[in-house]
Amino acid sequence: MSTAWKIRYAQRTKDIKSSTIRELLKLTQKPEMISFAGGLPAPDVFPIDRFQEACRRVLELNGHQALQYGASEGYEPLREMIARHIARYGIKAKPENVLITCGSQQALDLIGKLLINPGDRVLVEAPTYLGALQAFGVYGAEYVSVRSDEDGLRTDLLEEPLRSGPKFMYVLPNFQNPGGTTLSEGRRHQLVLLADKYGIPIIEDDPYGQLRYEGEHLPPLVVIDRENLRRDDGYSIGNVIYLSTFSKTLAPGLRLGWIVAPPDVISKFVQLKQGADLHTSTFTQVIAYEVAKDGFLDEHVKLIRKVYRERRDVMLEALKKYFPSEVTWTHPKGGLFLWVTLPEGMNCKSLFQVALKENVAFVPGDCFYAGNGFAEEGFRHMRLNFSYGQPEQIREGIRRLAIAVKQQLEQLHAAHV
Amino acid sequence: MSTAWKIRYAQRTKDIKSSTIRELLKLTQKPEMISFAGGLPAPDVFPIDRFQEACRRVLELNGHQALQYGASEGYEPLREMIARHIARYGIKAKPENVLITCGSQQALDLIGKLLINPGDRVLVEAPTYLGALQAFGVYGAEYVSVRSDEDGLRTDLLEEPLRSGPKFMYVLPNFQNPGGTTLSEGRRHQLVLLADKYGIPIIEDDPYGQLRYEGEHLPPLVVIDRENLRRDDGYSIGNVIYLSTFSKTLAPGLRLGWIVAPPDVISKFVQLKQGADLHTSTFTQVIAYEVAKDGFLDEHVKLIRKVYRERRDVMLEALKKYFPSEVTWTHPKGGLFLWVTLPEGMNCKSLFQVALKENVAFVPGDCFYAGNGFAEEGFRHMRLNFSYGQPEQIREGIRRLAIAVKQQLEQLHAAHV
Repeated sequence: MSTAWKIRYAQRTKDIKSSTIRELLKLTQKPEMISFAGGLPAPDVFPIDRFQEACRRVLELNGHQALQYGASEGYEPLREMIARHIARYGIKAKPENVLITCGSQQALDLIGKLLINPGDRVLVEAPTYLGALQAFGVYGAEYVSVRSDEDGLRTDLLEEPLRSGPKFMYVLPNFQNPGGTTLSEGRRHQLVLLADKYGIPIIEDDPYGQLRYEGEHLPPLVVIDRENLRRDDGYSIGNVIYLSTFSKTLAPGLRLGWIVAPPDVISKFVQLKQGADLHTSTFTQVIAYEVAKDGFLDEHVKLIRKVYRERRDVMLEALKKYFPSEVTWTHPKGGLFLWVTLPEGMNCKSLFQVALKENVAFVPGDCFYAGNGFAEEGFRHMRLNFSYGQPEQIREGIRRLAIAVKQQLEQLHAAHV
Repeated sequence: MSTAWKIRYAQRTKDIKSSTIRELLKLTQKPEMISFAGGLPAPDVFPIDRFQEACRRVLELNGHQALQYGASEGYEPLREMIARHIARYGIKAKPENVLITCGSQQALDLIGKLLINPGDRVLVEAPTYLGALQAFGVYGAEYVSVRSDEDGLRTDLLEEPLRSGPKFMYVLPNFQNPGGTTLSEGRRHQLVLLADKYGIPIIEDDPYGQLRYEGEHLPPLVVIDRENLRRDDGYSIGNVIYLSTFSKTLAPGLRLGWIVAPPDVISKFVQLKQGADLHTSTFTQVIAYEVAKDGFLDEHVKLIRKVYRERRDVMLEALKKYFPSEVTWTHPKGGLFLWVTLPEGMNCKSLFQVALKENVAFVPGDCFYAGNGFAEEGFRHMRLNFSYGQPEQIREGIRRLAIAVKQQLEQLHAAHV
């Protein structure tokens, strides 16, 4: 019936990864299922009352503007607020450094559109955020993957890949998705110096940076870049484009993220944004500003930290209590995810099937690798989300998952006998 | 400072049209300016009270869902409502035929992404919607322009361009932007038959279809395609992809549009949508559903029709009263725009400068042509919006514009003496 269209699909659509996760998530919809597969914030911490009040005020005082077309750059007071807000992390930005996007995902899409010619290589962590692979892939990106460990990207392995001339590096320094790992301060400095040495700029994706549950906040790459390379001309930012979002601190349903970049790069993004969707919803921007202002966001983030830290601790304890000693996992200092490493020979794909029967779900690790040599490694991992479930669900889910793991492990041992 | 990025811009960014309209609109921000340049709905008809009530109810009863991540396809009840709603225009669609987008502009971007390889030609009307040229241009589209008149696209001129093998046709059949013209029923049938004969499918963009102020609703191309070519298998739609939006009937600040297409084409769009921004704001979708349901949208559209018809009539009268007889204009049966043709030799660009001094603005016609031979013609037109201003502003604005036109006309006559 729709052959008329199919034969006309552009070349780039051949590169679309059919989303394994989407398919997986459909399997986890049963009410009896405990799913660690999603990346959802806890809905019980959404500040609903504050949203009520914000909607009431905005529609009463500013409804005509909030429902009308707006600037492609975004709602000016929101851009100002973001600039003020990130200043405390040392990021010097003015509103003209900020573009509001439909979530961080759109920022990734606009980056792909701006920078990637078919065949260009992007240097990514192994593992890395699946959504970035999807966003860049459609523009014909190829990937150079560099291994990471508990301290984030292995900067000691970087020079060789950098010499091969990737277009840019894509890095999540804080509580990485999926690894839950954080790039150490020493490596941050190394990374920025190497980026400068080889002239390869950095996309710093920081959706979770504010959700730290222990230890001290580490300087963003964008700050190290400016300070160490003495590029400060008052506000512009050099070798690093910085991304963040309200999805994890306010609510993902708003679809509000932002890009921080030099003004001339922002201008280019604005042109692309205009062609892509004119602008982000005025309504959600004005509401988000109204909700977040007057220091509310800071107070609210403290609450989220408290709730998520407790859930992380519950998951860590349950893993320790129920899981066999051959299995290891990361200790995330923040964020939403924890990364499990299975013993050699185990396969997370078949584990996933067994887990489903136990009514528990996770995302198999192979989804998070860009390929080139890491496929096998991916099968030894699973990503677990700890932000969404209630503590008692987390405990019960890990207990069920342990049953599946032990079952698989016994089969593996039996096969080796 | 940002050389690091500039030297890395992708090839496609060279094709970005820097938006003339954006620059123009900046010149029209003064409070004393009467601007016919924008394409804004009248904010005084936004149903603010209904939005108040919807926000209150949604946050009270459904806040956790409305603020959470959602499906890439869109909010299911909204997709169902759209399917029901378009059924009355004869468009047979089920929810699986509908994808929710961030305004129609994102639909155009996704279409470009799905269909256009660099160098592919797209057949467009001359003049056509600027936003489509921007959206398709970034994917490397080239254009075949076909002249239109008061009855829309000149289907008698179509065969030759169709033989040249464009990837698809992009057509706005109802109250076209910028022309204000409507494709006649006879030409609709011809267009669909020719599309079938040459195997070139159609994108039917219909943002204004409901805003008809006189005459009978004409059948959409997507309906003629199905009925005439007997492609009805119950729900799927063949040779035509249909686009529409809530921007002109509810509020543009929501950024809500939709694509109607066969389910397998929708699946492909969903993959692209996921990489582009995961999904459209759950919050605005749930609110829009709550506002529009129970027949409210139909009632509200009646009000908009009444208000806009009055404004159109005021503009038509004022044009007749103030403008010299050498100038002509379209008589739009609906929509937001009216298209003025200036006498030969006059140039809308220089007229624009004179008009600004009289504190009145419009969009010069050359913005709406894809090039290829129509550049000169473009300079003889201006697009006037009649939905935004109050009747007395419209009258006064046309009076001012007439002063500028007469001034230019006198100079033209003087030069010819």
